[in-house]
Amino acid sequence: MHVTLPDGRQLELPQGATALDAARAIGPRLAQDALAATAGGDLVDLMTPLPGGAAITLITKKNPADAAPVFRHSLGHVMSQAVGEFYRARGYPAEAVKRGVGPSIENGWYQDFDLPEPLKEEDLPEIERLMREIIARDLPFSRREVSKQDALAQFPHDPYKKELIGGLPDDEAITFYQQGDYVDLCRGPHFPATGRLPTSFKLMSTSGAYWRGNEQNPILQRVYGVAFATQKELDAYLARLEEAKRRDHRKLGRELELFTIDPLVGKGLPLWLPNGTVLREELTNFMKEQQFARDYQGVITPNIGNLDLYRTSGHYPYYAESQFNPIEVEDEQYMLKPMNCPHHVRIYASKPRSYRDLPVRLAEFGTVYRYEQSGELNGLTRVRGFTQDDAHIFCRPDQLKKEFLDVLDLTVLVLKTFGMTDVRFRVGVRDPGSDKYVGDEANWALAERQIVEAVEEVGLPYTIEPGDAAFYGPKLDFVVKDVLGREWQLGTIQVDYNLPERFDITYTGEDGQDHRPVMIHRAPFGSIERFTGILIEHYGGDFPLWLAPRQVALIPIADRHNAYAEELRAELHAAGLRAEVDDSSNRMNAKVRAAELSKIPVMLVVGDQEQENRTVSVRERTPEGHRERKAVPFADLMAELLERRRTRV
Amino acid sequence: MHVTLPDGRQLELPQGATALDAARAIGPRLAQDALAATAGGDLVDLMTPLPGGAAITLITKKNPADAAPVFRHSLGHVMSQAVGEFYRARGYPAEAVKRGVGPSIENGWYQDFDLPEPLKEEDLPEIERLMREIIARDLPFSRREVSKQDALAQFPHDPYKKELIGGLPDDEAITFYQQGDYVDLCRGPHFPATGRLPTSFKLMSTSGAYWRGNEQNPILQRVYGVAFATQKELDAYLARLEEAKRRDHRKLGRELELFTIDPLVGKGLPLWLPNGTVLREELTNFMKEQQFARDYQGVITPNIGNLDLYRTSGHYPYYAESQFNPIEVEDEQYMLKPMNCPHHVRIYASKPRSYRDLPVRLAEFGTVYRYEQSGELNGLTRVRGFTQDDAHIFCRPDQLKKEFLDVLDLTVLVLKTFGMTDVRFRVGVRDPGSDKYVGDEANWALAERQIVEAVEEVGLPYTIEPGDAAFYGPKLDFVVKDVLGREWQLGTIQVDYNLPERFDITYTGEDGQDHRPVMIHRAPFGSIERFTGILIEHYGGDFPLWLAPRQVALIPIADRHNAYAEELRAELHAAGLRAEVDDSSNRMNAKVRAAELSKIPVMLVVGDQEQENRTVSVRERTPEGHRERKAVPFADLMAELLERRRTRV
Repeated sequence: MHVTLPDGRQLELPQGATALDAARAIGPRLAQDALAATAGGDLVDLMTPLPGGAAITLITKKNPADAAPVFRHSLGHVMSQAVGEFYRARGYPAEAVKRGVGPSIENGWYQDFDLPEPLKEEDLPEIERLMREIIARDLPFSRREVSKQDALAQFPHDPYKKELIGGLPDDEAITFYQQGDYVDLCRGPHFPATGRLPTSFKLMSTSGAYWRGNEQNPILQRVYGVAFATQKELDAYLARLEEAKRRDHRKLGRELELFTIDPLVGKGLPLWLPNGTVLREELTNFMKEQQFARDYQGVITPNIGNLDLYRTSGHYPYYAESQFNPIEVEDEQYMLKPMNCPHHVRIYASKPRSYRDLPVRLAEFGTVYRYEQSGELNGLTRVRGFTQDDAHIFCRPDQLKKEFLDVLDLTVLVLKTFGMTDVRFRVGVRDPGSDKYVGDEANWALAERQIVEAVEEVGLPYTIEPGDAAFYGPKLDFVVKDVLGREWQLGTIQVDYNLPERFDITYTGEDGQDHRPVMIHRAPFGSIERFTGILIEHYGGDFPLWLAPRQVALIPIADRHNAYAEELRAELHAAGLRAEVDDSSNRMNAKVRAAELSKIPVMLVVGDQEQENRTVSVRERTPEGHRERKAVPFADLMAELLERRRTRV
Repeated sequence: MHVTLPDGRQLELPQGATALDAARAIGPRLAQDALAATAGGDLVDLMTPLPGGAAITLITKKNPADAAPVFRHSLGHVMSQAVGEFYRARGYPAEAVKRGVGPSIENGWYQDFDLPEPLKEEDLPEIERLMREIIARDLPFSRREVSKQDALAQFPHDPYKKELIGGLPDDEAITFYQQGDYVDLCRGPHFPATGRLPTSFKLMSTSGAYWRGNEQNPILQRVYGVAFATQKELDAYLARLEEAKRRDHRKLGRELELFTIDPLVGKGLPLWLPNGTVLREELTNFMKEQQFARDYQGVITPNIGNLDLYRTSGHYPYYAESQFNPIEVEDEQYMLKPMNCPHHVRIYASKPRSYRDLPVRLAEFGTVYRYEQSGELNGLTRVRGFTQDDAHIFCRPDQLKKEFLDVLDLTVLVLKTFGMTDVRFRVGVRDPGSDKYVGDEANWALAERQIVEAVEEVGLPYTIEPGDAAFYGPKLDFVVKDVLGREWQLGTIQVDYNLPERFDITYTGEDGQDHRPVMIHRAPFGSIERFTGILIEHYGGDFPLWLAPRQVALIPIADRHNAYAEELRAELHAAGLRAEVDDSSNRMNAKVRAAELSKIPVMLVVGDQEQENRTVSVRERTPEGHRERKAVPFADLMAELLERRRTRV
């Protein structure tokens, strides 16, 4: 057989040859350095026969990160072996430790155990120590194929392994991997020896997990680990994790009193506390301002609708399982509104429209309700009721590009305003092989072309994703990266030929005939709840002035400065700024600390000097740290704050 | 027996004497002028025996309006007689016209008929003519008492009369009234003769009405009339009616495209169209501004809540029949939020509160849902879902008066802003004889005293209404009169000792102990839907500039002025003013007419002169009529409009 090397060379090898054989054929140095390989794009290890004809690459110690899933998997086996040794050292027989599955996952691995006594968090360092010992022993990983019968005989005391083996097909080879005296049922791949594994790993936590994910089964103990090719990468990962915890919107939401979820009111139904309400209203006002400038028209529609409305739109029964149950009212049925679109379509239809009236842009901060399982709910990012900054643009087919461009422009402005500059677009177009699409062929082609032209004009990175269009129209997703490098899919801009058809809405064309408008669905924030959750984490609670629920803390140095502080507060407040005086009996430093803890961006300290000269000492929180200025005239400071609010920087 | 006259004199009269006998005893002139009388405050006629000992007054032609219910009732009999003559003249026998009830009502009367063929609207003038003929005949009204048996014999062919008579007690005298050949079963009272009745009456309409209001019974035809003592009063009433029709918020809502109700979306669930949404947002922003200035804190809560929340508050099952049915969610039940208060109480309870933190004022534009029978729904004033400008103030008992004063101040400001200056307050206090009230006796007494003191300080008219307090606290209603003289009960300010108790909320007092706060519920607009409906009628659609959905119409005289008009529009729009250019091909006069029809308050006409000098010709709609100004510099006009918007005049 032959394999193809990255430079295009073909290598002749005997049938059943492994990647190690291939490396040896190229040179002894490579064979020594090799850790794993890819064959036809899939990671493979050095012990497994290569498929004939595959294109292969060898992964060496120069680029171990390319084989991360492999060393993570091997570290899982090492951990499993270490756990066995841990219990043997405590006097348990080897068969007392039973094992479920243990795959590699993103950044690491996990392994499920049935243990004679539970592993405690404080045992993890000892397991890590044992793992390092096993790595130091440099035990080679070996692979062998066995029959099902032999496989069953290997684990006489482990019901989990026996169940797994029993479920495998009779006619397929079953593989075992072994390092030292540790043997496991495993498909691989693995590193050549424990000594080649990175020691930049960490055991993170344990949790309970039902055997095979079924609540009827026993709970096993799952142990998680993470590993990277270098200590630097591991440290960076752990720091990022620490930072993500510090920024967790549920934690900050509680600490900064932004929102709360109260089971007596309802699961997945956030209560917006005063500080969170300010934040939300600032977001809403920002969007309203933009929409007014762009000639959107606001509308307000009810939170429930007749079931017939959703039957007409097709949302019912199609999405019934993500919706709340209907409510019987006299001889009708009503449902919590799952979407605003049908309501807006009916507003469009409430009067005759001419080609001159188009585009009609109907916008609503519309609250919708979706049923989510209570186990799936999470803070603001997974809820049962949320408000969309929703709008529907009804336009002529020839207006689509201009409307799309305006929506894109708004979207980019929104993201820029929040410092989310790392953004990419995905244009979802038709799968050329499918005929599931509704709407006119020529309109589809026109829309797809207009969207791509619009994205081109904006000049931001995009990809075209065939098959990603909805059945009712092409769409554009945008994905932003936050400061922690996490990607979030925010809104979608969606072209829709279907609803205009289902509701039979029209406009009178220049020719006097009825024509079908096309709809665009758009929501730059998407869900305000989810967007706020993301913003809280993105800013780590340190909101820019215009968004900060509490903007200015006035800190009198002594009681005799309280009146001056209150006078300034009243002036700030009259200008619409959110200012408060700390007139507690605390010392100045404690007052500053309290304001810092509340993440109030501007602190104004006032004492004798300031009072005499009508100035303030300014202490500001900025992304770069603190900024302090003395003896700033209050009038200047006020003008500065108002300008910052106006420009939203 | 004797009766007492208004001057205190006692008059001796034989047993069974009537008011006419009393008049005669005073003097022949009075007997001639008398129309009716009151006895013990009740209207009586001149033919009915007076109760012994009563204080009586005689009503004469000098003040016939005092006897309006009497002449309205008599006119009802005259109409009934006229309808009989109308059908006899068409060849029907007398017994072909059968009659249900015919009471006097506010401003007039109605009479139900079972007719051989329906009366048409266009027959009403002929009935009126016949009524005038009967009045000209000057037929005396006579009264007689008959036995039940004789009464039944009077109406052998009229099943309705027979049913009515059959339902009367056997031992009570049954009375008949008769004028000419028309006899009716009737308790009276009536005028002495048809010739004394005013001719300032009008038949208004006919409608169907079930016999005895029961859907199982046959439908009778109901004919309505109105009458006043003078033609002037009748004309004024008809003009007011015409004006009320012209101002009907359902009609104006349609014409001005403020809202629509779409049965496919839901009965009683208004869709706010773009123009209505602007109006509503202006109202909301106005209230938010006031609330910010008064240190309210905004909150936002979901539109549904766990049934347990409303069980705790007591809203369920107590108000269950005005609420929508619960929705099953997993093992819980949820309900459309009928009230915001329980949600706000839970926000209060979400953290510990100290006496220094109080008052806490939580405000929400909260949308609530109540079940109303579909037959009861009416435009914006009777709906199934509405938004309250709701707030709940949690305070210490000693803070109640100050908080009440601030709420009153806000209320008066709101009413003044809308030109609703004719307002009266009703202080609802305990019924001293009842023990249905929850809460501490001393707190009640304190609260009642503080409310009265607060209303006194505001200096507006008020009445104290014993027994009008809710079981959970005293309250204050305010009733305003609109420009048509109609009274509307708007919001309520309600003290509440009950919810704090039921939810067991507390604050830590200066003494370190837990204390119970008191709550105030307040909503100056009440329901924004209803308030908007009232405002539409109050203004007749001619909203002041700040509220007007469309504020400025730019009217280019010729096409060549379109660009200048558009330039001005862009400037107005950038300043947040709602301006539009009429660039249609219509002539100027037609454009002005279109703007008038849309009730746009400011029209700016621009031609060569204006363009050259950067001026505008201003045509404004004002309550007093039109106001025109030529050659106003655009910059001046703009400043003027912004100032008017800012000051909301």
